[in-house]
Amino acid sequence: MSSVGLHRFPQRADNELYYGADYNPEQWDREIWEEDVKLMKEAGVNVVSIGIFSWALLERSDNVWDFGWLDNVCDLMHKNGISIDMGTATASPPPWLSTAHPEILPTFKDGTISSPGSRNHYRITSPVFRKYALRLVQKLADRYGSHPGLIAWHVNNELGTPDYSDDAAAAFRIWLERKYKHIDKLNDAWGTAFWSQRYNDYNEILPPRVGNTFINPTQQLDWARYTSDSLSNYLDDETAILRKASPNIPVTTNFMLAGQTKGMDVANWKVDFVSNDHYRMPGRELDADELSFSASLTSAVAGGDPWWLMEHSTSAVNWQSVNTRKKAGQLIRDSLTHVAHGADAVCFFQWRQSRSGAEKYHSSMIPHAGPNSRLFKDVVQLGQDLKTLAEIRGSRKQLASVAIVWDWESWVASEQDGHPTTLVDYFREAREWWVALMDLGIRVDLITAQHDLSPYKLVVAPILYLVRDSVKSNIENFVKAGGHFVTTYFSGIVDENDHVRLGGYPGAFTDLLGIRIEEWAPLLPNESVELDDGSAGTIWTDDVDLTSDVHVLRKYASGELEGKAAVTLKSHGHGSAAYISTRLNVEGLKSLLPELLQNSAVESGLPKSLRSTVELAVRTDGKKEWEFWINRTGKEIDVSDAPGKLVLATGGASVGKLAARGIAVFRREVSESRK
Amino acid sequence: MSSVGLHRFPQRADNELYYGADYNPEQWDREIWEEDVKLMKEAGVNVVSIGIFSWALLERSDNVWDFGWLDNVCDLMHKNGISIDMGTATASPPPWLSTAHPEILPTFKDGTISSPGSRNHYRITSPVFRKYALRLVQKLADRYGSHPGLIAWHVNNELGTPDYSDDAAAAFRIWLERKYKHIDKLNDAWGTAFWSQRYNDYNEILPPRVGNTFINPTQQLDWARYTSDSLSNYLDDETAILRKASPNIPVTTNFMLAGQTKGMDVANWKVDFVSNDHYRMPGRELDADELSFSASLTSAVAGGDPWWLMEHSTSAVNWQSVNTRKKAGQLIRDSLTHVAHGADAVCFFQWRQSRSGAEKYHSSMIPHAGPNSRLFKDVVQLGQDLKTLAEIRGSRKQLASVAIVWDWESWVASEQDGHPTTLVDYFREAREWWVALMDLGIRVDLITAQHDLSPYKLVVAPILYLVRDSVKSNIENFVKAGGHFVTTYFSGIVDENDHVRLGGYPGAFTDLLGIRIEEWAPLLPNESVELDDGSAGTIWTDDVDLTSDVHVLRKYASGELEGKAAVTLKSHGHGSAAYISTRLNVEGLKSLLPELLQNSAVESGLPKSLRSTVELAVRTDGKKEWEFWINRTGKEIDVSDAPGKLVLATGGASVGKLAARGIAVFRREVSESRK
Amino acid sequence: MSSVGLHRFPQRADNELYYGADYNPEQWDREIWEEDVKLMKEAGVNVVSIGIFSWALLERSDNVWDFGWLDNVCDLMHKNGISIDMGTATASPPPWLSTAHPEILPTFKDGTISSPGSRNHYRITSPVFRKYALRLVQKLADRYGSHPGLIAWHVNNELGTPDYSDDAAAAFRIWLERKYKHIDKLNDAWGTAFWSQRYNDYNEILPPRVGNTFINPTQQLDWARYTSDSLSNYLDDETAILRKASPNIPVTTNFMLAGQTKGMDVANWKVDFVSNDHYRMPGRELDADELSFSASLTSAVAGGDPWWLMEHSTSAVNWQSVNTRKKAGQLIRDSLTHVAHGADAVCFFQWRQSRSGAEKYHSSMIPHAGPNSRLFKDVVQLGQDLKTLAEIRGSRKQLASVAIVWDWESWVASEQDGHPTTLVDYFREAREWWVALMDLGIRVDLITAQHDLSPYKLVVAPILYLVRDSVKSNIENFVKAGGHFVTTYFSGIVDENDHVRLGGYPGAFTDLLGIRIEEWAPLLPNESVELDDGSAGTIWTDDVDLTSDVHVLRKYASGELEGKAAVTLKSHGHGSAAYISTRLNVEGLKSLLPELLQNSAVESGLPKSLRSTVELAVRTDGKKEWEFWINRTGKEIDVSDAPGKLVLATGGASVGKLAARGIAVFRREVSESRK
Repeated sequence: MSSVGLHRFPQRADNELYYGADYNPEQWDREIWEEDVKLMKEAGVNVVSIGIFSWALLERSDNVWDFGWLDNVCDLMHKNGISIDMGTATASPPPWLSTAHPEILPTFKDGTISSPGSRNHYRITSPVFRKYALRLVQKLADRYGSHPGLIAWHVNNELGTPDYSDDAAAAFRIWLERKYKHIDKLNDAWGTAFWSQRYNDYNEILPPRVGNTFINPTQQLDWARYTSDSLSNYLDDETAILRKASPNIPVTTNFMLAGQTKGMDVANWKVDFVSNDHYRMPGRELDADELSFSASLTSAVAGGDPWWLMEHSTSAVNWQSVNTRKKAGQLIRDSLTHVAHGADAVCFFQWRQSRSGAEKYHSSMIPHAGPNSRLFKDVVQLGQDLKTLAEIRGSRKQLASVAIVWDWESWVASEQDGHPTTLVDYFREAREWWVALMDLGIRVDLITAQHDLSPYKLVVAPILYLVRDSVKSNIENFVKAGGHFVTTYFSGIVDENDHVRLGGYPGAFTDLLGIRIEEWAPLLPNESVELDDGSAGTIWTDDVDLTSDVHVLRKYASGELEGKAAVTLKSHGHGSAAYISTRLNVEGLKSLLPELLQNSAVESGLPKSLRSTVELAVRTDGKKEWEFWINRTGKEIDVSDAPGKLVLATGGASVGKLAARGIAVFRREVSESRK
Repeated sequence: MSSVGLHRFPQRADNELYYGADYNPEQWDREIWEEDVKLMKEAGVNVVSIGIFSWALLERSDNVWDFGWLDNVCDLMHKNGISIDMGTATASPPPWLSTAHPEILPTFKDGTISSPGSRNHYRITSPVFRKYALRLVQKLADRYGSHPGLIAWHVNNELGTPDYSDDAAAAFRIWLERKYKHIDKLNDAWGTAFWSQRYNDYNEILPPRVGNTFINPTQQLDWARYTSDSLSNYLDDETAILRKASPNIPVTTNFMLAGQTKGMDVANWKVDFVSNDHYRMPGRELDADELSFSASLTSAVAGGDPWWLMEHSTSAVNWQSVNTRKKAGQLIRDSLTHVAHGADAVCFFQWRQSRSGAEKYHSSMIPHAGPNSRLFKDVVQLGQDLKTLAEIRGSRKQLASVAIVWDWESWVASEQDGHPTTLVDYFREAREWWVALMDLGIRVDLITAQHDLSPYKLVVAPILYLVRDSVKSNIENFVKAGGHFVTTYFSGIVDENDHVRLGGYPGAFTDLLGIRIEEWAPLLPNESVELDDGSAGTIWTDDVDLTSDVHVLRKYASGELEGKAAVTLKSHGHGSAAYISTRLNVEGLKSLLPELLQNSAVESGLPKSLRSTVELAVRTDGKKEWEFWINRTGKEIDVSDAPGKLVLATGGASVGKLAARGIAVFRREVSESRK
Repeated sequence: MSSVGLHRFPQRADNELYYGADYNPEQWDREIWEEDVKLMKEAGVNVVSIGIFSWALLERSDNVWDFGWLDNVCDLMHKNGISIDMGTATASPPPWLSTAHPEILPTFKDGTISSPGSRNHYRITSPVFRKYALRLVQKLADRYGSHPGLIAWHVNNELGTPDYSDDAAAAFRIWLERKYKHIDKLNDAWGTAFWSQRYNDYNEILPPRVGNTFINPTQQLDWARYTSDSLSNYLDDETAILRKASPNIPVTTNFMLAGQTKGMDVANWKVDFVSNDHYRMPGRELDADELSFSASLTSAVAGGDPWWLMEHSTSAVNWQSVNTRKKAGQLIRDSLTHVAHGADAVCFFQWRQSRSGAEKYHSSMIPHAGPNSRLFKDVVQLGQDLKTLAEIRGSRKQLASVAIVWDWESWVASEQDGHPTTLVDYFREAREWWVALMDLGIRVDLITAQHDLSPYKLVVAPILYLVRDSVKSNIENFVKAGGHFVTTYFSGIVDENDHVRLGGYPGAFTDLLGIRIEEWAPLLPNESVELDDGSAGTIWTDDVDLTSDVHVLRKYASGELEGKAAVTLKSHGHGSAAYISTRLNVEGLKSLLPELLQNSAVESGLPKSLRSTVELAVRTDGKKEWEFWINRTGKEIDVSDAPGKLVLATGGASVGKLAARGIAVFRREVSESRK
């Protein structure tokens, strides 16, 4: 799971962590720019992303250019020691372009055209769009590639807009032909013998638009793969221009891990360094701990390298149904949690809150209230805290002994239509494991199923629905070598073509788990079943038959399956493979996990008293280790057991205290490491 | 209510009940075909439906044919004594056809085009589609019409796709002109004087597409009638070709009674024998007893003749939001319940569960787990049970003494928009009556409102909203002759053109019922009212004025209508007419029904102790009667009072016991009949 | 807030209040017309609106006219002393027109075309539609402009259909160019520097159709303004023709205040006299008192002049999800409540309930049950009551001492997307203030924010989100002069371009209120907070900082803001300005209002015992005053304290009694006025 290409990172003369924001000075008069610089310095800002949405102001009409203002911005920043992450400005085509070429507009699944007036209104596959966009990139590359303030290129913005247009259909066909070569391979993979879908020729194929009932599922799965690849391919095209013009400037594009990214398999995209946008969703289950989950996932995508938090919010956003503000301490705690999981840059959208436009109610580093505000004070404090932490720059996340498998294809494929239940939620199940382990004080890594599993003692793969043969082997070898593997309901079901592995479920894992399921028994929305430890199962159950010598860790204690196995564990030498046949939720998992962990001898890195209230994350440069103790609660916590020298304690905490929503960072030599 | 044309039935040399499935061998390698035959024999399968979705594999490109594989399948089946129900393969046009002729694609109400990639993507009225489809039918008829294994033709599949395209508009106009002749007749019928909708010419008329507010209701009603007729007309076209090529082979098409069929008035379609697809919906109210309701309705559509259960599922389906599996005993109990209500064939979709494609999670006779499974054991057992019941083949349902009127036009018309409440649910109300009567142990027939009522003692017509003059007379004559008639809220309101019958509600029945309602009083979603027997009324109430000598069976005991009549009964000589002004739900109806049944002297055919737990169904060949006692519960029941000789007891029940979800079949001579 | 042009009113020889309905005789045979006249006389009907939806019957095909039947209707009415409000018949184009010119059909936001078969299927900006419609208006003006029965013209019907077509785009561009002149002004106003939206030319601009995410908010706001203006402009075009042909006949169009009118800023439309359609929505919060709210708003739009209630219902409508009937007494009480708030005409949709068509289940003056019905008896009684009240004709509403600001732009702008919360409901908040004040027995006027505030002691401006500089001054001057101003959360935020007023919220009012808010704290859907008087706050809270000497009337007593100010009041000499930072709901407002009212010395005009059960409204002609005491409850009330001579007591109430849902009207000389 790594989208890192050349492992090249932005460079600054100093060795500080990066701190900054999207900076959109074009929204403001020039006198404000001067105030901006003053306040950036006050806040410790040392990097800004500029030009992200500037196309219309750079190319005023077809091939008529106005770079003067941007020259000024770049010079102003550089003069003041603020580095530049330069956007390629292709994310929002200007009105003159969509007016002259409405054929660049994308279409939704039902054929509705996406109108200008917002952003992202382009077909990534339109030759016309591509011609204009890449010309713009070339211009920017030529003009700014050697600017002394430039430290990174920022391609487009949150690449991810789907498109079902005829241009997309044409590109999909090319993608498919490249993959399958002979059309009969595609017919086999898609199972077109059913419902009279056999294709004679690639030109007969369409995107999965709106049909009378379910569209072919492998067509849908390949469409998702194609969509991600088409975005990645566009990224490559911009990158090639930028690389050529400025070989030493690293290129990134801001991903949207985790909740918003189902459309993008970014682990397979190529960037010089990984950057990510992350926004909390206060209305969502387990929102608080989803932050560290996603940060950890970003670290995984970065292959353990440091990465950039390219966007997050200082407080409320404006695109959820209710946009709550952050609580006292939360701005700094949330930002530094990303750092704890490997971020070397903390950036916000955006520097100064807009007065007008669609995102004017999105919080920023300078709020509508102005710099005389609690929020800006926190911004300044965060800048100081980041300076204090400068010593960790370039360090990597320390490997954990437990990993959760995050598999993009299983996410996409397991939630398709026409399935046993629409209640499967891949991301939620993964979050529940994350939170349950965190509640027990266990550090966890996120990895792909193809990842080398050998560093881990315990690997959990929730809803690993799609299992390639290579993944099957990888997991089997892990267990054979003494690893402990845990998986759940609706895992091991299909191969890479979404073809069911026959002979009983969970196809790929029946032997490994020593069980066989003839039929699934999903539960209705308001149904639940009791397990013999009092836990409740929802969404799914299985009628598990034991086909070999298997430990039954939990039985069903109510319903049709009363007395049958709910959780099983099969030993393989020193290794083991466990199966959980229902959704246990965080509480149920916490009740079960001690038994699973016992086998693997995994232990918490935290004192017992802190395990449910403190999150632990560790970075290391090989010589030193930094432990981040993150207060997950709104109350002060005693932390007498310091694991090293205190580097930072946020929220004005004294030694031995962790402030409400505070973070303490401890440093020690690796030689002193507790494990 | 009979769609039977020539009363011709499939013929096999033996006299067994039919047992089988949709068989899609094109999804599998040839070696699997051999295993299929072996397992079919083990299961007692004697018929398969083939070719349903084979167009793309039969006509590989325009007029290029490949029948070889289908020849092989037919020969293989026949050689092994398995009869063939041959699909006409027109249900899913191949990609080459929709690519060359996108004008065959149907459009949704809002103009969205239904895309290929699924199935049913054709305009039934497209001349282009028709040309290609009927050429295919002709080819199949010519090639297989004389195949010795062929016992039936199976037209298309679940005909029912609506289409709002311009082709549909043209066909709608022809249908309307044929109905109304002069445009002024249409203007009168549609009430076009309102909202300036007067038409000068048929070419001005459009389907009821998306408008600013409600589309003309008679336009909507005629559109529903047209849609059903257009599907039926297409069925006729295929049938004509098949009849000509093979005059002795009966033709059917698989209906979708009851829940999914609002688009199809199949009682007016012409087939040689009726076949039906039925799927349970575990999330829906009264799902369990909806099965026998729909089976009974299918029997009614078949005019009492035996019919085929063409598709149902061995266990879970894959198209509901949660697809639960069947419980132990349920596969056999559910299948035989259809037999109890007149089915001579029990077929499933499909024989072998697909590995790929949109329906791979739909259960089948051979599950993903393979023949070594509980499910396949049940399949084999069901085959044996059907052999045991072979003696009933060709027998008909024995008439009940109570009938529920099922009126397709009232269903469609009562649930249109712009009505007093959107909470009217025709199908649910009918099901509630069915279940309430079943809970009292009363056998019920389903009939149309035009049906001869004289065989019945009690006729219930829930929500008989649309009442033609002929229906009014039919009911009046029934009551005059001593029959007992019961109807409900929102009945008798309009004539065949959806014009209100003026002078007070329920227009058609004010005299018969001896009541008059000036205004309806529908209830808000969370409102309910109490009746004086403690029952609760929901959805609807009426402010009933008594206009003649009427018995008030129930009064409202709360709300605005406290003290006013809720349920009335007017005597007419030995007959009577009762009105129920609110939705009572099953419990309320069970509290009321004894008083309604008392008048008609209808009695249960079951011992008192079994009335709420056992469903009774009776078939007869005129000489013998077979009573089916169906255990509605998940527990074993004592049935000491056997009504004849035990022919079959499923679930391994001993004499005097009805297994959990079991069925017992008793035979006796008609001369011994208890009534 | 006044859309009155020339202050010209319909004239009849007698001085009675107007009573009548939409009359659609074209739906009925001629013999029914005779019965209609007889029943109209019985009911006291003296005006009918005709021709509203008659286009297809008047212009039978392109330029082929048939006025004969309408001549007959006019003559019949006039002969029988019934005046005519003549519709211009343009609201529903005939089928021949939309068939010949489908380019007149409007499109929805996503491009879906609105189909004929309903009504309102025209683009208000289509030159083709306009040509045909205005030709029709000219014909009607020429033919009926001098008809002796004609007393008013009725333009179109409920003008309000939005349209996103290319014709609309063209008209929008013209409207914008007229407003902004140079395109750079528009770029500034719309903030197009963000998201690369800068326009070079007006021809690049589109309606706010469906985009990938939020469309530019000022574009949306201007679109709402344009839409209202485009409708108003069309109204002007029809009006010009009618004025020219019949200079003495006043022109109106029926508005849809309040709930349905978000699309129409009717206070800025030009009519000779205001007329309104009003329908209750029994499922909606505070439905009962919304009636008087909307009536009062209509009076405000009429500038205090008498107005016409052009449509309401005698009982149930047919377009809500559940359409409940009116309760005993309600028809008369509801009708006369409109009169109490300034209506001189009480008209219904429609005279005789249709037998067919989309609105056949909409109640009318003659129901389906016929004239022999309770409903028609009420209709006759209402006619008599209106005769009894004839003396009030022409009188105006007496000014109250409290006003609620109703600002169309704040309504539209505050509920746009991309905001802090989607739960803001402008109309509901205003209704809650209305009801809270009514519950305390306080009479209230509705006014615009531009209105002269000096007549009022207390002015409440809930959610006054958009505040122009002139409005800011208006309010400041009001307070300076001793007025008491109250506003709520999400007020004072933006200027007329939806640009945020910077420096802290509530931008426009920070000085006036003496507070400053750095960040909002909206609440999740199921969250609420407690205040120190036990009231509950929902939807919104603010973290209020006091920046000057301010009284804290309420503090938060739970949650993050515990102990901080929830309600503040700042004194300015004799005046004051209060801020409520959360939604208090009716109960919370009633708990708070006594303290707000105390400052202003506003007192109830009702005896203490009646304040929560009786609504008080007052009309005056300068010499006399009429007090309407309206029983809000379903129970009889004692009203011993009569404020003058009893003119009318509905519901058969004796002196000293107010019937359940009854109204009593008292007259006195102004010299005897109690205040």
